[in-house]
Amino acid sequence: MNELELIARLTRALPTNDTVLTGAGDDCAILDLGVPEQLILFKTDAVVAGVHFTGETPPEKIGHKALARCLSDIAAMAGTPTAALVTLGLPKDFDPDFVVRIYAGLTALAEKFRVAIVGGETTTNPGGLLISIALLGSIPRGRRLLRSGAKAGDAIFVTGELGGSLAGKHLDFTPRLVESCWLAEHFPLHSLMDLSDGLGSDLRHLLKASGVGAELLKSAVPVARSARVAARENAGAKPPFIAALTDGEDFELLFTLASRNAVKLLDAWHREFPGLKLSCIGKIVAGEGILLRDKTGARPFNAHGYVHFA
Amino acid sequence: MNELELIARLTRALPTNDTVLTGAGDDCAILDLGVPEQLILFKTDAVVAGVHFTGETPPEKIGHKALARCLSDIAAMAGTPTAALVTLGLPKDFDPDFVVRIYAGLTALAEKFRVAIVGGETTTNPGGLLISIALLGSIPRGRRLLRSGAKAGDAIFVTGELGGSLAGKHLDFTPRLVESCWLAEHFPLHSLMDLSDGLGSDLRHLLKASGVGAELLKSAVPVARSARVAARENAGAKPPFIAALTDGEDFELLFTLASRNAVKLLDAWHREFPGLKLSCIGKIVAGEGILLRDKTGARPFNAHGYVHFA
Repeated sequence: MNELELIARLTRALPTNDTVLTGAGDDCAILDLGVPEQLILFKTDAVVAGVHFTGETPPEKIGHKALARCLSDIAAMAGTPTAALVTLGLPKDFDPDFVVRIYAGLTALAEKFRVAIVGGETTTNPGGLLISIALLGSIPRGRRLLRSGAKAGDAIFVTGELGGSLAGKHLDFTPRLVESCWLAEHFPLHSLMDLSDGLGSDLRHLLKASGVGAELLKSAVPVARSARVAARENAGAKPPFIAALTDGEDFELLFTLASRNAVKLLDAWHREFPGLKLSCIGKIVAGEGILLRDKTGARPFNAHGYVHFA
Repeated sequence: MNELELIARLTRALPTNDTVLTGAGDDCAILDLGVPEQLILFKTDAVVAGVHFTGETPPEKIGHKALARCLSDIAAMAGTPTAALVTLGLPKDFDPDFVVRIYAGLTALAEKFRVAIVGGETTTNPGGLLISIALLGSIPRGRRLLRSGAKAGDAIFVTGELGGSLAGKHLDFTPRLVESCWLAEHFPLHSLMDLSDGLGSDLRHLLKASGVGAELLKSAVPVARSARVAARENAGAKPPFIAALTDGEDFELLFTLASRNAVKLLDAWHREFPGLKLSCIGKIVAGEGILLRDKTGARPFNAHGYVHFA
């Protein structure tokens, strides 16, 4: 049983109640707690030593990443973050000053997005440092941008550039909160998510949730410079395009909208966010899976992104 | 730096915003998210292999305990739980069926209290199993039962019996959600918390938060049978009374109210909850710290409960 199979089994019949609009399976849960104009987002995410950071990672960046990952899930629903709880699992021989510096990175990012840190917990974790963040956010009622809304004929967009995040971006990225709220306010998106496991894997989740397929244009996928550098410097590295689809930890936005709005969107985006690339990488089609089109034709793309416990 | 010193340093200047009514330091955070009649409770709690359960603990009980601890914090605010997220940190060689059984214990308790499980996360945790629960709840506006409300002259109460929880209770206790809501609805409590680290330690937190002291009547403290059994069977065990104040993991309620209401409360309690002991164990006094009174007089009580990272 790999992670996805285990999660499928665990989430098959979870207890629910009448506050739950969207439960397990999307970027955040969506709850109706009775706020007149808003729905509540609820999300948790953890980083673990040796998996999400190393012994060399500066503690401020560990704290930044722990919260930024969770904020990226709020961005994936075009939400506004509100308040966070921080759980620290600390190894026996932890250095208190190291923990204080983790908090410094974390609180700096929280302040930037006006997120309150309202408590949490410290516990021992014999195997090494673990930080779990629980986060609340909100969306206007009526704004439910799920993975399941993509329709055949939609244009597929990604923000920024993909691949090579391990060279540094995964530790200091800015979650796309501003951009996703702007998108939701100005354009009728059909589906939205953030890229955490890699486009090849995340797009597949979106397609499956929406019951559709996708045709990607290879030349349109924005490959990060760091992915090209890695391939140049290491003969054993993935080709840059494969890195862009499978490295993971991009924390960019992936979304779809009716293709008739695509040009208008690109135009408005470049005025609003001149420093951030927005790429139309293909279209949603009937069927299932990912077709990749290049000069020689269209073929199925089957490489996956990061698979936990693989 | 022990746990309390580290937490004091980390929580000294946390980012806040206008949703926060009570942040770090009480049993739950209290948020005003704009629900007309309610305030929102937000809490997280983790259990870790080797600390909160052993290799022999049945997985259903691990799941039960993970959620029950967090529910006990909602009970500590006389709140109603709403929705939970479950984070699983799994060792490399985990058995999927073991995880499925953890979920079975967890969901059975969630169903009992109508708590929705709305998602969560699985991640690797090289050192061993860790389960972190993030929980939302609610209280009526106006019901803010904090640790800081105790007043000189209050009577001090505890539910149930204390000590010896490790003999079994810590794995299958029922969080006092029903009892604490009943208390808050029927009596003007001044302060309320749950007992997790042991009365000796938890009462001290309440006293410090309230700026008062306490005088406990030794003979009135309800000592659990399991604490007496442990002392009888093991010459090296703590005396039962010390166990009752320092073992921890009792998950009973500790609260204070004006002593003029004490008899009326005991009377109403015994009609409402005939199977559950309620004990008046002493009174709140001016000053600080805990005085313990027995036949020979009153002396300071300085033994502490469970200190994390001690």
